[in-house]
Amino acid sequence: MMDVTVIGLGSMGMGMAKTLLSHGFRVHGFDIAQDRMDSFRQAGGEDGSLDDALAQSAVVISVVLNGAQTEAVLLGDMNCAAKMNKGAVFVSCATLAPDLATQLEARAVQHGVHYIDAPVSGGAVGAETGTLSIMASGRPEAFEIAQPALDAMSKVVYRLGDTAGPGSAMKAVNQLLAGVHLCAMGEALGFAASLGLDLGKVNEVITQSAGNSWMFENRTPHVVEADYAPRSMISIWPKDLGIVSDIAANQGAEVPLARTALEQYQKAVDAGDGAVDDAAITRVFARAAGVKLPGET
Amino acid sequence: MMDVTVIGLGSMGMGMAKTLLSHGFRVHGFDIAQDRMDSFRQAGGEDGSLDDALAQSAVVISVVLNGAQTEAVLLGDMNCAAKMNKGAVFVSCATLAPDLATQLEARAVQHGVHYIDAPVSGGAVGAETGTLSIMASGRPEAFEIAQPALDAMSKVVYRLGDTAGPGSAMKAVNQLLAGVHLCAMGEALGFAASLGLDLGKVNEVITQSAGNSWMFENRTPHVVEADYAPRSMISIWPKDLGIVSDIAANQGAEVPLARTALEQYQKAVDAGDGAVDDAAITRVFARAAGVKLPGET
Repeated sequence: MMDVTVIGLGSMGMGMAKTLLSHGFRVHGFDIAQDRMDSFRQAGGEDGSLDDALAQSAVVISVVLNGAQTEAVLLGDMNCAAKMNKGAVFVSCATLAPDLATQLEARAVQHGVHYIDAPVSGGAVGAETGTLSIMASGRPEAFEIAQPALDAMSKVVYRLGDTAGPGSAMKAVNQLLAGVHLCAMGEALGFAASLGLDLGKVNEVITQSAGNSWMFENRTPHVVEADYAPRSMISIWPKDLGIVSDIAANQGAEVPLARTALEQYQKAVDAGDGAVDDAAITRVFARAAGVKLPGET
Repeated sequence: MMDVTVIGLGSMGMGMAKTLLSHGFRVHGFDIAQDRMDSFRQAGGEDGSLDDALAQSAVVISVVLNGAQTEAVLLGDMNCAAKMNKGAVFVSCATLAPDLATQLEARAVQHGVHYIDAPVSGGAVGAETGTLSIMASGRPEAFEIAQPALDAMSKVVYRLGDTAGPGSAMKAVNQLLAGVHLCAMGEALGFAASLGLDLGKVNEVITQSAGNSWMFENRTPHVVEADYAPRSMISIWPKDLGIVSDIAANQGAEVPLARTALEQYQKAVDAGDGAVDDAAITRVFARAAGVKLPGET
């Protein structure tokens, strides 16, 4: 029975930590929010301090918001790299720039710790059900240790290279597409509403046509049912598309659709919708066209 | 055995006409290109003049490029409305503005002819194999007559209303999404190439992730295999997204992603790629980033 420490018990990290529990791992969960830690311990997580957890764990999985938090966990405030066992594996799941992943790997190695660049796709549902896609790269020795934990959390682990970087690069490509497609859904539904089309019918037809996308199919029902309880919040997108935009600028690549989508998400956040479900991007377009969405009066 | 006239034997019209033949219809096919007409007659199409064909046909299917050509077929040079039998059905498959569809229906009715607003989705392959999606609206009496022909050509006929307009509106929504998604594929692949990712691997990962779309899955293999033989030409997209943009302006709706995509397609056409496969939109982004795509040296 392997000990795994999970740092960050948000909707993703909590789901992943519980999935690991259900696969028989001994799981140590930590979060800045005490109630989340308590909740996880009631669900079967281990008690004890972070230092004890790190001393017992062969694998430490970081599921925090962004690159800055990942750096703080690995090298800053938490300084896991200094506290982990030599030869243990730090698995970084946040979306961050490939260059930063490369730097963090180099610094982890200086502490005798392996680093796997392992962003995930599949959302909170994928985390809860152990059906994430993991876009991973890192040293083969690191995978030898971490593979059972990665397998437990995922339907597929893509091995994209033997160093950190390609995992984060692939995740950025995925976020570019998912972010643009979700915004396109909002644009298309606002446009459809302006033409008097029934959005339930639009959902039925488009999901069987060339205009379909994973995001369209997944999020349009939220709009049709006027259900904006946050499964994934709008505020994720200015962050992730900002990362994409920064990486692109760094590479000399042009990403005009990602930039245009980013502007629309920023409008949604500015209008106070940052913490609602990201399907509410549709409201930006409905407001602009002066049309009502389902549930609006 | 029902007589059907198909006007326009391009990649869509030819496929649809041959599909009707294979379902036992007597099919009269016409095109401004004599070699296409000859080719269709060799495949089993009827001989004879347009006037004779229209006099024998209960259903006339127009598969031309745009609204102006549709108008010329129905009321202008060809003037089908005046030559068709009273009570026969004109089926318009081009992508055109909903307002124009409404006008054409009204003018067809003045000639005692039914009009079905019936844009299609599914491409040349769908046309050849009788698996199109047809986004149709029009009078129930018109569907009573045309339904067998529509069914033969399609896997599904959506009935979207009892007048012309909603069919074209739904097609515009589909084209907005498909056009943006295809351009997003090009943007994402150019971005991925700038990061040194293998595009075959990108295809493998993204089609299993939240970044997937119908267009991504369908067109990315063309880029990976460097196969730009035109299944659907880039030049379609400035036309269709131009229609979307015009409709949106008319409705007071904002379509910033469609407009951004339109600009990229125009760049591709300006660079001389109008007649190649639309997956070549990726070249716009690869050139901008100074990276090579598969097959480029």
